[in-house]
Amino acid sequence: MSLIVQKFGGTSVGSLERIREVAKRVAQTRAQGHQVIVVVSAIAGETNRLLALGRELSARPNEREMDVLVATGEQVSASLTALALIEIGVPACSLLGHQARIVTDHVHTKARIEKIECDRLHEALKQGSVPVVAGFQGIDHEGNITTLGRGGTDTTAVAIAAAVQADICEIYTDVDGVYTTDPNVCPSARKIGRISYDEMLELASLGAKVLQLRSVELAMKYGVPVHVRSSFNSSEGTMVIDDKSLESVVVSGVAADKSEVKLTVRGLHDQPGVVAQLFEALAERAISVDMIIQNISEQGTTDLTFTVKRDDLDKTHEITSQVASGMGARQVLVDQEIAKISVVGLGMRSHAGVASRMFRILAARGINIEAISTSEIKISCIIRQSSADDAVRALHEGFALGG
Amino acid sequence: MSLIVQKFGGTSVGSLERIREVAKRVAQTRAQGHQVIVVVSAIAGETNRLLALGRELSARPNEREMDVLVATGEQVSASLTALALIEIGVPACSLLGHQARIVTDHVHTKARIEKIECDRLHEALKQGSVPVVAGFQGIDHEGNITTLGRGGTDTTAVAIAAAVQADICEIYTDVDGVYTTDPNVCPSARKIGRISYDEMLELASLGAKVLQLRSVELAMKYGVPVHVRSSFNSSEGTMVIDDKSLESVVVSGVAADKSEVKLTVRGLHDQPGVVAQLFEALAERAISVDMIIQNISEQGTTDLTFTVKRDDLDKTHEITSQVASGMGARQVLVDQEIAKISVVGLGMRSHAGVASRMFRILAARGINIEAISTSEIKISCIIRQSSADDAVRALHEGFALGG
Repeated sequence: MSLIVQKFGGTSVGSLERIREVAKRVAQTRAQGHQVIVVVSAIAGETNRLLALGRELSARPNEREMDVLVATGEQVSASLTALALIEIGVPACSLLGHQARIVTDHVHTKARIEKIECDRLHEALKQGSVPVVAGFQGIDHEGNITTLGRGGTDTTAVAIAAAVQADICEIYTDVDGVYTTDPNVCPSARKIGRISYDEMLELASLGAKVLQLRSVELAMKYGVPVHVRSSFNSSEGTMVIDDKSLESVVVSGVAADKSEVKLTVRGLHDQPGVVAQLFEALAERAISVDMIIQNISEQGTTDLTFTVKRDDLDKTHEITSQVASGMGARQVLVDQEIAKISVVGLGMRSHAGVASRMFRILAARGINIEAISTSEIKISCIIRQSSADDAVRALHEGFALGG
Repeated sequence: MSLIVQKFGGTSVGSLERIREVAKRVAQTRAQGHQVIVVVSAIAGETNRLLALGRELSARPNEREMDVLVATGEQVSASLTALALIEIGVPACSLLGHQARIVTDHVHTKARIEKIECDRLHEALKQGSVPVVAGFQGIDHEGNITTLGRGGTDTTAVAIAAAVQADICEIYTDVDGVYTTDPNVCPSARKIGRISYDEMLELASLGAKVLQLRSVELAMKYGVPVHVRSSFNSSEGTMVIDDKSLESVVVSGVAADKSEVKLTVRGLHDQPGVVAQLFEALAERAISVDMIIQNISEQGTTDLTFTVKRDDLDKTHEITSQVASGMGARQVLVDQEIAKISVVGLGMRSHAGVASRMFRILAARGINIEAISTSEIKISCIIRQSSADDAVRALHEGFALGG
């Protein structure tokens, strides 16, 4: 008997018919003798509908209240899933963030889980019931509702799997697994059978939308095996596991990310502490900065470029403009037309020449590179968004990733 | 400075535009120097939409999960109302059942409030913030979400007003106040300026939908003055207050209630304890029985007739059939085509002849009376539903209630 966490995304609970299918799958898993904890997202489209309501009332809506508003999405799908389970004879009970005791920090709209008090989960399991946990939501120390940010239900699922020491965390989604690149962009993309946490981490952070970045971080930290698979069939998906058991391939995947925007502060005085002041101000508002590029100094001033998520643009622009004008900078430029294109592979650690090969492939297609960032196992380039799909296909072919 | 509880019903928060109007009204009340606690219903139609979703998954949906599902309705309107208040510069924070600490018993879908721990409400007021409480919902001692039954937001509002010792509880609705009868049925219906708790209690229990019965009971118990008024204009509505200050009128209103159904158990053995057994079984499932009529015994068997709310019909029929067959009764009949028509007035206590006058008025219109029930200040008759509107007009005219 295993203890299995099964997470179902927005399309997997996208209609009452789909919810009935979810219930059947859970019942099958139990019939095989396993214990199951279910974690659900909001019904596809619901979160956006709720966000739109709130934004119609306020251009910059209060974040505490937005969390209360959007948390209803997962509350609805959790109760409906529990109803569907009970209807087919499987005892079940929905648990919201405050009931499953998913305790987070105070940062509304992108809270981080601090701990999960598992008593209620264990109690439900002990009674032979399936806990159906509303994903994406938690509660802070004062009892306020918080949400974990986009894709937060993956994080809920992995965090619960870690907390209850589940044998596996299954992520049911609308794709078969993790691919070498986006099959919609590149038809020769191939499903990856097994991938390391490290590589998945890079792919997730680089725009492969199948698993949320923080959920992979958590899975790696606590060694939770994650199985990404389709809720529409029963074929094996992609196992995300410890890398020790995997043979290193030089490049395992290509990812494109169009969700970032680029800001440039022009004419910044090149003095110690200037840059720190800006990024401290951004960190205080929980804004994650991705790439940072600072050009060499010219006559005592410099240009500083960095990228953030598009959702954070308004806040980032406001903070950056304040800090920049306080420091006598000339101008803050915003560029929303960028894409980040990346190749990832554990084997890069020991193979030279991957970067130069990437640059050559892009150059051969006439694609201009505007910024570069590297880690041990990935190389990312900022290019024009209009060239992103072309670049993905070129790199996928150039690194011979096709099936 | 007064402390005012303002409750807004489903049509009052029926759209974002209406929610903005609610926010303006709250802001005006604060500008007059008062402290305000807001209580909101779900957006009109939302509760029914959610109920339909759950019922599509299950013919007899689990009640715990239905409470989790429908409670999202008030969660959405509470957060939207808080957003609208903050947008116009009024500090506000939504509070759900588990945050406002509205503690109820365990009876899902029709829980009763046991206590309200006001710390969080007082704290918000002290900080100059407007608490926006999600109506209709509470939490039981195990932290499960409960709901108070239809119209439960009135109950939430009055219970909070009692708990914080508010000066007044204002019920904003889509009508101007309490009328002598339904103006849609009887055009000469007149708005009542002041009415006693006792009379309002009878009118509410008899189908005047403007205030929920339990909220009036609570208001009477704790002496909370209730002001029923329109959210679409600023005219005075109806004050519901202690009767000592009111002159007794013989008949103050006429009400029709089409929400009940009638069950008859035929051929019940007429032995001590038989009837008790049935009504105990119903009470255990929290089903309120309204009228009970038992005919005289004939050859050792009797027919027992009683009425319940239409919503409780399935449960009631199931329980009654079980108990009846266990007692060897012949048959359980269900009649869904009834209406209960009532006249109410404090003055009845000291005026004879009201009942006979009522029966004469109905007889003159050719309306047959199928059952009768009386209290100190009201007389109710069961008639065919198709005659209900006609009966209301006849009684309203017959007792000279018109303007």
